[in-house]
Amino acid sequence: MLDEHGRRWRDRPAVLEMESGRRFDYAAFAGRVRRLAGWMESVGLKQGDRVVWLGQNAPCVLELLVAAGRLGAVLAILNWRQSEDELRFVLHDLDPQIIVWQPDSLPDSLRAEWKDRSCVWLCQDSLDSTCDYESAIAGAPEAAAVAMPSDAAQLLLYTAAFSGRPAAAILTRQALVLQAIQYAALRGWNNRTTYLSATPLFHVATLLDCLATFVVGGHNLFVRHADPAAMCAIIAAEKVSDTFILPPTMEKILELDASARNGLGSLRSMPYKPEWNALVTIDDSLWGKRPYGYGQTETMGYATFSALGDPGKGGMGRPSPLVRMAILDEEGGELPDGEVGEIGMKGWTVSPGYWRRPEINVQRYTADGWRRTNDLGRRESDGTLSFIGPKGRLIKSAAENIYPAEVERCIAQIDGVAEVAVIGTPDPVWMQSVRAIVVPKPGATIDEAAVIDHCRKAIASYKKPRSVVFADTLPRTGAAIDYAALDRLYEGGGYPAG
Amino acid sequence: MLDEHGRRWRDRPAVLEMESGRRFDYAAFAGRVRRLAGWMESVGLKQGDRVVWLGQNAPCVLELLVAAGRLGAVLAILNWRQSEDELRFVLHDLDPQIIVWQPDSLPDSLRAEWKDRSCVWLCQDSLDSTCDYESAIAGAPEAAAVAMPSDAAQLLLYTAAFSGRPAAAILTRQALVLQAIQYAALRGWNNRTTYLSATPLFHVATLLDCLATFVVGGHNLFVRHADPAAMCAIIAAEKVSDTFILPPTMEKILELDASARNGLGSLRSMPYKPEWNALVTIDDSLWGKRPYGYGQTETMGYATFSALGDPGKGGMGRPSPLVRMAILDEEGGELPDGEVGEIGMKGWTVSPGYWRRPEINVQRYTADGWRRTNDLGRRESDGTLSFIGPKGRLIKSAAENIYPAEVERCIAQIDGVAEVAVIGTPDPVWMQSVRAIVVPKPGATIDEAAVIDHCRKAIASYKKPRSVVFADTLPRTGAAIDYAALDRLYEGGGYPAG
Repeated sequence: MLDEHGRRWRDRPAVLEMESGRRFDYAAFAGRVRRLAGWMESVGLKQGDRVVWLGQNAPCVLELLVAAGRLGAVLAILNWRQSEDELRFVLHDLDPQIIVWQPDSLPDSLRAEWKDRSCVWLCQDSLDSTCDYESAIAGAPEAAAVAMPSDAAQLLLYTAAFSGRPAAAILTRQALVLQAIQYAALRGWNNRTTYLSATPLFHVATLLDCLATFVVGGHNLFVRHADPAAMCAIIAAEKVSDTFILPPTMEKILELDASARNGLGSLRSMPYKPEWNALVTIDDSLWGKRPYGYGQTETMGYATFSALGDPGKGGMGRPSPLVRMAILDEEGGELPDGEVGEIGMKGWTVSPGYWRRPEINVQRYTADGWRRTNDLGRRESDGTLSFIGPKGRLIKSAAENIYPAEVERCIAQIDGVAEVAVIGTPDPVWMQSVRAIVVPKPGATIDEAAVIDHCRKAIASYKKPRSVVFADTLPRTGAAIDYAALDRLYEGGGYPAG
Repeated sequence: MLDEHGRRWRDRPAVLEMESGRRFDYAAFAGRVRRLAGWMESVGLKQGDRVVWLGQNAPCVLELLVAAGRLGAVLAILNWRQSEDELRFVLHDLDPQIIVWQPDSLPDSLRAEWKDRSCVWLCQDSLDSTCDYESAIAGAPEAAAVAMPSDAAQLLLYTAAFSGRPAAAILTRQALVLQAIQYAALRGWNNRTTYLSATPLFHVATLLDCLATFVVGGHNLFVRHADPAAMCAIIAAEKVSDTFILPPTMEKILELDASARNGLGSLRSMPYKPEWNALVTIDDSLWGKRPYGYGQTETMGYATFSALGDPGKGGMGRPSPLVRMAILDEEGGELPDGEVGEIGMKGWTVSPGYWRRPEINVQRYTADGWRRTNDLGRRESDGTLSFIGPKGRLIKSAAENIYPAEVERCIAQIDGVAEVAVIGTPDPVWMQSVRAIVVPKPGATIDEAAVIDHCRKAIASYKKPRSVVFADTLPRTGAAIDYAALDRLYEGGGYPAG
């Protein structure tokens, strides 16, 4: 991949680091990566070993990913925003052979703890040439590529906490390359694309944008942090064609002086307000028209695309050609269309499991190899996916499985409901009963019977609440509803084990 | 792939057979394929077994390919135009477990020879329901999919004769699916695409068009034979968006009555004459603008695309993201840019070898795994590929390798040259000398010194002819120049062994 890429695209620009102004074309980039791999080999990196990147956005991320892959090793891109304690856990979990870091991304105390371990450290822009990233590249011979199967691991990305600790999703070479190819196709990207990574590359969405740009021979720009004015300046100077930008940032750009937002004409964007649309080029790719999909880190980003085919009933669109999808029941069996269950995924882009987590892998994969996404969805009669919500806890009533998220979604549609949470209360006959805690909007009057009646009509009758409690607020931990507190306050309990 | 496809695209039209008018949507198509696989299983088809399709274009081809793949078996799509003797050889070579055939595609004598072999026959549209394709599908249970690695064989396509006999290129699942995805992207195809297969599906180009349409959820139409008027009628009736059509057919369509060529507006076509362009929709996809590339059956079609990136010096464009390319010397080493050598390919879409041909595989693959394409090319300084010609014989002079095709290409550029062929003559000192046999255009005068001088300036001096012979014609076998006859006529010989 790399060698051919260097020869395929040659003097086309490959990467640009905004802070340093360092630019490399594809031929130079390929040479750097071969020497970086040569350095890795010289310090003993072997097939299956782990390399860590700990820092903000930089071309290093792409260089390290490809260089590690060249030797059959794996790159872990770490969240530089996490706490020292989390970072300590993650580093022990990875047991890496090489750590490449940016100044300020690693607490001194943690660095001190690790100094006696057999692990090689490299720092981006260190004054000490014995551990400086650029010096390592400059002084190394080029390494040859180790032949690896297409389902070999190439990337580790940490995802949501399981039992209190994050776990790293293993992503394969084929997941990276194939997802990049098909995603670039939907976005209409080619070697004229100039993509600015201004959001963190430890998130799969930005990383996929960057990889897709790389795979089609486009130009990847990296910036650690850019406020709206700085972003406008970069877009204008480098004729950026694509970046990850959301309405709040668009608003801030619209508030800038007209002179500061000149020169955004190269940027392709989904339509927003007329004054925004006048500044940019409206993205008329399939993706630009319907930029939605369901995915997660463990599926290398999008597993469904609303850009595939005509719009359907389900807002998340159809599964990509690289995956299969099943809506699963609690036992891992497949549910028919129209029923809500856990979204299951299988295929080229789906992670084969979590790094060193056999106990989680047993839970998150069925015997048939379906990945349990921990999200609820429904496959509509037209083949599209409706996303219901995170799976959360299961309520068991009369041998039926009830997902609070589905009932909550149903009740939230009632006029006058501000917020809602659903719990299970112990029931001597049915094991559990459904109880809804509803926060009405100010001035709204809702009664219990109306809520129950609405649910009976909208979802399966056994899922309707047996009781509705009205409250002024819902207890939260941060942004998330605190279901344990709800159970204490409203007599929840009797949940099925496991 | 199949199950998901049936659910992803549901009631979108999947296939239409023009002769019978049979149409199936994706859900029905998936059910048919599952039952076809069920029938295959019931007659004992196992992983690695071979299924043969012998007939003209029909939806069966797609159904058989996916059904065989579902059981881990392989489909061989045979050329129904080949002679009885060739067909006999191919059937023995394949040793198939199942043969599905169309009436008229198989000589009775060959059928009689095979009747005692343990091989199950199925005929499209047989009146005898015990061996009828549709009856087999109707009566079978659905088969579950066997999990197979992505580099497992799924397709066998016979290619050019080696030592007098054709050999089947093994093509893998990943070659089929990935090539289809990236090719569909370059063509701008999606589920609104309606493709008419009117050229033979045993050719990789048409088969790839058909597969790409299938993978993106488009509509595949199959016709055994269509004259220009019939083709126009199909395009108009079914709103065909794409088909394989070349200028000679365009000319014939332009000669039809205006009424017969009404309704071609849905057809996307590369630009041709103004009167043609007025009838169709000009294809503005990347592919439509530059529909060229280098490829062969063994690379599942295109391995390079001129649609990738800006136009460059080499007319064949850049290698696809799914392959690596090397220009190889005789020993399998890699030549630098600008030098002519054998085009070598490696990667996801490249065949791992020929079916049951270890002796050919040793010749056609280097120790490093490069496929030797038997074609000559040059990688230009901008990364693009120039195609020089079939490799043909090698001339050896003063330890240098000289490919006649390169010298011929050079001489053909001289004004007044109608045709040229280059041979090697024995040379006591240098092993061989280059001799050009030139056919001048009527009335043209060319002299030997001018030919030699032109070559000295245009290509490496050691490749220039030592002698030039002028002739009225070149001996041919069919369309091909008969080099053995040239050697006899013009004292060729002394070629290196092997």
